[in-house]
Amino acid sequence: MELTPRSELDDRIARLQARLIAGNDAEAVFIFQAADLFFFAGTVQDAWLVIPREGPPLMLVRRSLERAQAESALEHILPLGNPREVPKLLAAHGLGGLKRVGLEFDVLPVQQYARVGRLFPTMQFVDASHLIREVRVRKSPYEVERIRRAALIQDRMAARLREVLKAGMTELELAAEIEAEARRHGHQGFIRARRFNLECFYGHLLSGENGAVPSWMDSPTGGTGLSPAFNTGLGTRRIQENEPIMLDYAGAVDGYHSDQARLFSLGPLPEDMVKGHTACIAILEQVIGSLRPGARAGEVFARARAAADRLGYADRFMNTGPAQVAFVGHGVGVELDEIPYLAANSDMPIETGMVLAVEPKIVFPLRGIVGVEDTVLVTTGDPEVLTVSPRELVVL
Amino acid sequence: MELTPRSELDDRIARLQARLIAGNDAEAVFIFQAADLFFFAGTVQDAWLVIPREGPPLMLVRRSLERAQAESALEHILPLGNPREVPKLLAAHGLGGLKRVGLEFDVLPVQQYARVGRLFPTMQFVDASHLIREVRVRKSPYEVERIRRAALIQDRMAARLREVLKAGMTELELAAEIEAEARRHGHQGFIRARRFNLECFYGHLLSGENGAVPSWMDSPTGGTGLSPAFNTGLGTRRIQENEPIMLDYAGAVDGYHSDQARLFSLGPLPEDMVKGHTACIAILEQVIGSLRPGARAGEVFARARAAADRLGYADRFMNTGPAQVAFVGHGVGVELDEIPYLAANSDMPIETGMVLAVEPKIVFPLRGIVGVEDTVLVTTGDPEVLTVSPRELVVL
Repeated sequence: MELTPRSELDDRIARLQARLIAGNDAEAVFIFQAADLFFFAGTVQDAWLVIPREGPPLMLVRRSLERAQAESALEHILPLGNPREVPKLLAAHGLGGLKRVGLEFDVLPVQQYARVGRLFPTMQFVDASHLIREVRVRKSPYEVERIRRAALIQDRMAARLREVLKAGMTELELAAEIEAEARRHGHQGFIRARRFNLECFYGHLLSGENGAVPSWMDSPTGGTGLSPAFNTGLGTRRIQENEPIMLDYAGAVDGYHSDQARLFSLGPLPEDMVKGHTACIAILEQVIGSLRPGARAGEVFARARAAADRLGYADRFMNTGPAQVAFVGHGVGVELDEIPYLAANSDMPIETGMVLAVEPKIVFPLRGIVGVEDTVLVTTGDPEVLTVSPRELVVL
Repeated sequence: MELTPRSELDDRIARLQARLIAGNDAEAVFIFQAADLFFFAGTVQDAWLVIPREGPPLMLVRRSLERAQAESALEHILPLGNPREVPKLLAAHGLGGLKRVGLEFDVLPVQQYARVGRLFPTMQFVDASHLIREVRVRKSPYEVERIRRAALIQDRMAARLREVLKAGMTELELAAEIEAEARRHGHQGFIRARRFNLECFYGHLLSGENGAVPSWMDSPTGGTGLSPAFNTGLGTRRIQENEPIMLDYAGAVDGYHSDQARLFSLGPLPEDMVKGHTACIAILEQVIGSLRPGARAGEVFARARAAADRLGYADRFMNTGPAQVAFVGHGVGVELDEIPYLAANSDMPIETGMVLAVEPKIVFPLRGIVGVEDTVLVTTGDPEVLTVSPRELVVL
C-alpha cells in the first residue's frame, strides 16, 4: 500500500504554515475531517491533527494508533486515550499557550466544535477552512499522477458503456455494469465532496429528458434520482434511441478524484442536439485555452458564457430558467468540489498546478442535456488535459 | 415514483412537536440535513424546513421549488430567493417571534450555523439532534416495509457472492460483482450515516486476516481499505481457501437501510472459527430474545457480552485489545447509524417499532473475523427478523 511521501506532507504543512504566518491570526489549526486528515497526515483516523504556525505537527490518535503510525509519514504521532488529555499533550509538545486556533468551520459539526471549546474554554476559534482549501489549489506532480490514474478509470467506464448499452436498459441497469467496471479497475467507490449534503454516488448518468430535470444541486445536471430520498442523478428510466446519454461519473483512486463527462446515443441524435454538443466542445476548448496563470476564475467563466451566447445558447448554457448556474468548472483533488470555482462570483487567480474540471453543458428543456467535461492541469504553457476519452459524441 | 404519504409526515412532525412541547425549550426546529429533510418533508432540497412547536411546518426552498412541490406532501412550501428573506417569510407564516430554536448540532457545519445566527441575531439556538433522533426510533409499518425491501437486496447480494466467489479473486473484484447485483435490484448506492467522517461505501467485505485489521471506526470490523486515503473495509487482498469471508454490505432503497452480515468460506474453515461463528449465532438469538419492550439497551449489550464470556470469547468479542468495542448493535432507518445503540453506556428503553441491527462478531487476531448480523423489528411479542438470508456459515 502506497503512503503519501514525507516530502509531500512537509510541503503541504509548510504551505499552510506560511498562510498562518501571513494571516497573523490563528496560531495553529486543529484538523478533524477525513479529507483534510488524509491531505495533511496521509491517513484518516479518529484523531486530532494539530498544525502549529511553526514547528512540526502533532497527531493525537484515539484510534487506530497502529494504523496511523503505519500509514502516516508524520513524526509526532501519539496515543490519545481521552480528549480531556489534549490540553496536557499539547503543552508537553510546546503548544501549551495557544490563544487563537483555526478550525474547519465549513465541515465541522456544531457539536464537535462545542466539545473542542469545552476542552479549551479560553481559546478563541476562527474559520480556517479557506486556508485549508487554498493550500490545496496547486497540485504537486505526485498528486497530478494520481488524478491521471483516476482519469484512466473514467476512460474504462466510458468503454464499458459502449460495450453494454442497449435500448430498453434502465439507467440503473447501465450504471450497474459501469460501476462494476470502475471497481475492477481500482475505483475507491466513495466520492468525497466538501459541501454540506452533497451526497455523491459516482456522479450522474442521465438519459433523455432525465438530463433536463432540475434538482437542488448547484450543478447543470439534476436528474430524478431513484426516489425522493435520493433525488439526484440516475433513475430507472429506460434508455431509448436517438436521445442523449451523458456519463458524468467521477474517477477516484488513492484519495484523488478526476471528473469527466461524455455523451453517447443509440442511433443519431437530433440535429440541434448534435450542434449543441459541438458548441460545448468549442466552449471547452476556449476555456482550456484561457486557463493561463494570472487569468481570473470569474473572467474564465465570463468568456465561456460569452462564447455560449455567441453560439446562441444564452438561455440554455449550464441549465435553463431558475436552474441555470453561473459556473463552468471547479477544482478537483482529494475532494470533488475543490476551489477555485470557475464562476461568475470568483476572482481567484488561475495558477500553475491547478487541476480544474471544465464542464460546459447545454440543456434542452424536457429533452435532455448535451456537453462535455475534462479535467485539466494548468501549466506555464498550454494547459494539459488529464482526462483521456475522445470528446466527440459517440453514436452506437 | 413513490412519495412519503402525508399521514406519515404528519405523524413524524406530531411526534417531534410533542417532544418540543414536553421539553418546553425550543419553540421550533430548523432542519437542513438531507436525511432529516427526507424524514420530515419527504424530499431533499436546498431548503429550510421549519417545524414550529404547534401548527403546520413551513418549507422554504431555494431550489428546486418544483421538485419540492412534486415530492413532498407538506402543505406549505414556498420559494426562497435569498436566505435574508427567511425572517420575513417566517413572520408572514405567524412565526415572527421565535426566541429559541433547535438545530441539528450533530451534523450542521459551524459555517452554516453561523449564517443562521446572522439572520436571527437575537435568537437563541439549542441542540435538537437528540429530539430528531428520538422521533426516529419507532418505525411505522410503512417504514418497516421499506427496510424489508432493503433486506431483500442484501439477500441478492449474498446469493451473488455464492455464484461468483473463486479462490484468487481480490476482495475488490468480488465486490464489483456484488455491488452490480445490488444495483440491478434497485439499491440506491449511497449509504447515509450520521456520524462525522463516517464515509460508508456499501459497508465491509473482508476476507482472512483483513477481517482482523483494526481501524478508527467504532465498529468490530476494520479492514485495510484500498489505500490510506480510504482506509476501512475491503482492499485488494486475494481471497484464499479455508478462511472466513464476511459480507457486511448494507441494503438501501427508497431512503431506508437494512444491515446484515453473513459468513462464507471456500472449503472448510478451521474448527475454532466454525465454533466462533456458531457462538455468534447463539449470541444473536439470545440478543433477539431479549429485545422486549422495557428492556434497556445497555442490559441487552451486557447480556450479549455475558454470553460471549460464558462461551469463552471474552477477549475476542466485538474485536480485541484496544479495538474492542462495547456495543453489539444499533438502530437502522433513514440512516445506517440510528439510535439506540445496544451499547454498555446506553440506558435507552427498548420499544415496539424499533428496528435494530444486531451484530455479534468475534475476531481471531491476524486470522480474521466471524459472526453474523440481522436487522430485527421489536414487537409486543417475539421480535421479527427482517433480514432473510440463512445465518449459517456457507461453505463453497
